[in-house]
Amino acid sequence: MIFLDNASTTPCNAESAKIMADELTHNYFNPSAKYTEALENYKKLEMARGEILKLVGAREADYSVVFTGSATEANNLVLNSSLNKHKANIIGAGEHSSIHETAKQFGTQGYKILEAPLTSFGEVDIEKFKTLMTPDVAFVSIMFVSNETGAVNDIRELAQTAKKINPRVLIHADAVQGFSKLKINLSEWGIDYLTLSAHKIEGPKGVGALVYKKSSKLEPEIFGGGQENGKRSGTENLPGVLAFINSAKRLHENLTENYKAVKEFKLALIEKILALSNSAGLELIINGNPETASPYILSLGIIGTKGEVLLHALEAEGILVGTGSACNSKHSGNRTLSAMGKTKKEVECNIRLSFSAHTTTESVQKIAEAIVRLAKKHNNTSR
Amino acid sequence: MIFLDNASTTPCNAESAKIMADELTHNYFNPSAKYTEALENYKKLEMARGEILKLVGAREADYSVVFTGSATEANNLVLNSSLNKHKANIIGAGEHSSIHETAKQFGTQGYKILEAPLTSFGEVDIEKFKTLMTPDVAFVSIMFVSNETGAVNDIRELAQTAKKINPRVLIHADAVQGFSKLKINLSEWGIDYLTLSAHKIEGPKGVGALVYKKSSKLEPEIFGGGQENGKRSGTENLPGVLAFINSAKRLHENLTENYKAVKEFKLALIEKILALSNSAGLELIINGNPETASPYILSLGIIGTKGEVLLHALEAEGILVGTGSACNSKHSGNRTLSAMGKTKKEVECNIRLSFSAHTTTESVQKIAEAIVRLAKKHNNTSR
Repeated sequence: MIFLDNASTTPCNAESAKIMADELTHNYFNPSAKYTEALENYKKLEMARGEILKLVGAREADYSVVFTGSATEANNLVLNSSLNKHKANIIGAGEHSSIHETAKQFGTQGYKILEAPLTSFGEVDIEKFKTLMTPDVAFVSIMFVSNETGAVNDIRELAQTAKKINPRVLIHADAVQGFSKLKINLSEWGIDYLTLSAHKIEGPKGVGALVYKKSSKLEPEIFGGGQENGKRSGTENLPGVLAFINSAKRLHENLTENYKAVKEFKLALIEKILALSNSAGLELIINGNPETASPYILSLGIIGTKGEVLLHALEAEGILVGTGSACNSKHSGNRTLSAMGKTKKEVECNIRLSFSAHTTTESVQKIAEAIVRLAKKHNNTSR
Repeated sequence: MIFLDNASTTPCNAESAKIMADELTHNYFNPSAKYTEALENYKKLEMARGEILKLVGAREADYSVVFTGSATEANNLVLNSSLNKHKANIIGAGEHSSIHETAKQFGTQGYKILEAPLTSFGEVDIEKFKTLMTPDVAFVSIMFVSNETGAVNDIRELAQTAKKINPRVLIHADAVQGFSKLKINLSEWGIDYLTLSAHKIEGPKGVGALVYKKSSKLEPEIFGGGQENGKRSGTENLPGVLAFINSAKRLHENLTENYKAVKEFKLALIEKILALSNSAGLELIINGNPETASPYILSLGIIGTKGEVLLHALEAEGILVGTGSACNSKHSGNRTLSAMGKTKKEVECNIRLSFSAHTTTESVQKIAEAIVRLAKKHNNTSR
C-alpha cells in the first residue's frame, strides 16, 4: 500500500503510541489531584507547553498553550473567543471547514465576516486583503498552509499589513498543515493565536493545541473544573499530549532535510505525471504553485476523469489518495478550488496527494504511471 | 501503592491501551476519507455507537451517540444545546463542575437556572424537586451518581415526576460515576441525554460520549467537517473510542459481581474505621448513606483533622486518596457537602476514597488503620 493521504491523517509514530499506552496504564494520575504523582503530571503538562512553544518559536514570557481534543476544537475556541460582534472580522476564503463553518454560524448571529479572496495559486491575495483590512477589522484568521493545495500564506507579512492598519487587531493562523513540516516562528510573526493538530503529524488522534499570546483575549468555550488555566475544562489528556510532543520532536529533528526530500519527490512526481499525461493526450491540472506551495500536498486533476473515480481506481491498485479534504466530505464542491477561480470541470477531476517524511522516491514512477493510465481509462473527454 | 482515587481517574485497562496503540499505528485511516479502509473505520465507529447503546439499555431506533473529547465536553454540549433561554432550567445542587460552572455562565447571560436542593445524604430531594418543577421548566440536568459522595439519584423517578408536570421537558443525566458500575437502563429511564466518560472506567483519557434521544434537540457546539452526524466536528478518535468500548465491556462482564464485592469492601472498611476511631476517641463523619450510595465512593472525615493534611499523611504511606473531586480543585470549599448541610468543620476534614473492581479486600485493615492512626496524629481537637 502507498498511503498518499497524510493531510487527512497519519499513522501514529510507534514510539509515541507506546508512550501513550504506557502513560495511560502506569502514569494515569489526574494532574488536578493533590498527591505527588499528580503534581508531577501537572508539571509534565506545563513542560509540554514549553516544548510546544519552543517548536513554534514562541517565547514562554509571551505565549502559552491550551491543549484541546482536536484542532477543530482549537479553531472553534479562537473564533468563539475572539470574533468581534461589533466590528468586522476577516477569514481566508480557503480556510478549513472548522474555521469556515464556525464563522458562518457566527454570521447567522449577526457577526460581520469578510472573506479574503485567494489568488489563482490559492494564497490569500495580499492586495485584496489590504482593501478589506480597515481599522474596523478586529479579528483575522488566515491559515498558514492550505489543506487543499498546500498554498503557503506569508503570515508575517499579512500580520504586519493588518497591524499597520489596526494595531489592536487579533490575528489567528491555523497551522495544522504547516507544523513540523515548515518552519514556524511565532515571535517573528507576532500573531496572537496558532492552531496545531497531533494526528496530522504522526501523533495520536484526539489531541490538538492552541498557542496564544498571554496578553490577548482568550475566553473558554468549555467550562468545568478550570483545567488548562481555566481556558478548557476537562481532565487533561497528558498521555496524548506526551505522544503529540514526541511525534513533533521526531519530525523537527529533520525538518529541513524532510522538507527538501519531500519537495524533490513532489517535483519529480509532477514532472513524471506531466510527461506521461502529455504522451497520453491528457490535460493535467496542477492546483497551486509547486515552487512556493508546501511540498507535502499536491492537488491535481486530469480533465475529464472524475476525482472520485480516479481515487477508487488508484485504491484498487493499493494507492490511497484523497479528493480534497476529508473534513470537507460532507459538503459539496470544493470551496478552496472555487475561490481560486477553478472551473467546474477542473474541480470535478481533483484529487489530493499528500505526503509525509516517509514517502519514498522509488514510488514516483509507480504513482505517476498509475495515475495517468487510470485517468486515461476512465476519461470522458478527448482533447 | 494503594490507589483509592478512582473517581478522579483510573489506570487504563492494558488490553484497551494496546488496542488504542495498535489502531493509531496500523488502522489510522480517517473515517471521513473515501477509500475502503476509511469506510471500514466509519462502520466501526457506527458499531461502537451501537455497543454504547447496548451497555446503557438504549434502543438504536430511539437513541444515538456523539463521541466527544471528554465528559466535560459532553456536559457542555448538552447545556449549550438545550438550556432554555425563555423558560426555567433545573440542575442538581451537587452537579459536577462541568454542569455547575457551565450553567453559571449561562446564568450570567440571563438564563434562569434553578438548583434542586440535596438531602442530607446527598441525593436530589425529590419533594423539593417537585416544588421547583413547574410547567415552565424546560430542561433538567441531574447526575446519576455523585462524584463527591456516591449518592445515587433515582433518575427514572425524577424523570417521571418531571414529565408529569411538563411532558416536553428535556432531561439529562451525567452518568460518569455510574456507567460500568451500576446498571443503567435508558429506555426505562426515558430521558433525553446521558453523559459518559472513558477514563473513569479504565479507558483512555480524551474520550467522552453523549447518548441522546434522536427525537430530542441536539445542536452542535463545535463546528467544522460535520463529523458525528454534524453534532461534533473534528477527526473522529476511533482508536480512543475502541479502547473505551473495550474497557466498558470488560467491566460490564462482571458488573453485578464487581458491585457486590466493592460494596462488601466499602461496608467492611467503614465498620473497621468506625471501630478504630471510636477506640481512639475520634469523631468519624460518613457523608452519604452507605447502604444506598454507590459502593465505589466513600466520602468521610475525622473531625479536627484537615482533609488535605490526612491526604498527604496517607500519601506518605503509599495510600492515595482525594479531597473531594479533582475537578473541583480550582474552587474553594465543597459545593456538594455544603448543599447537604454539612458544617465547615465537617467539610474541612473531608477526604474521598474511591474504589475500582480491582480494589482488594485484604487492604481493608491497612487502610482503616492508617486513616485512624494518621487522623489521630494530626488531630486538633479532643472530643
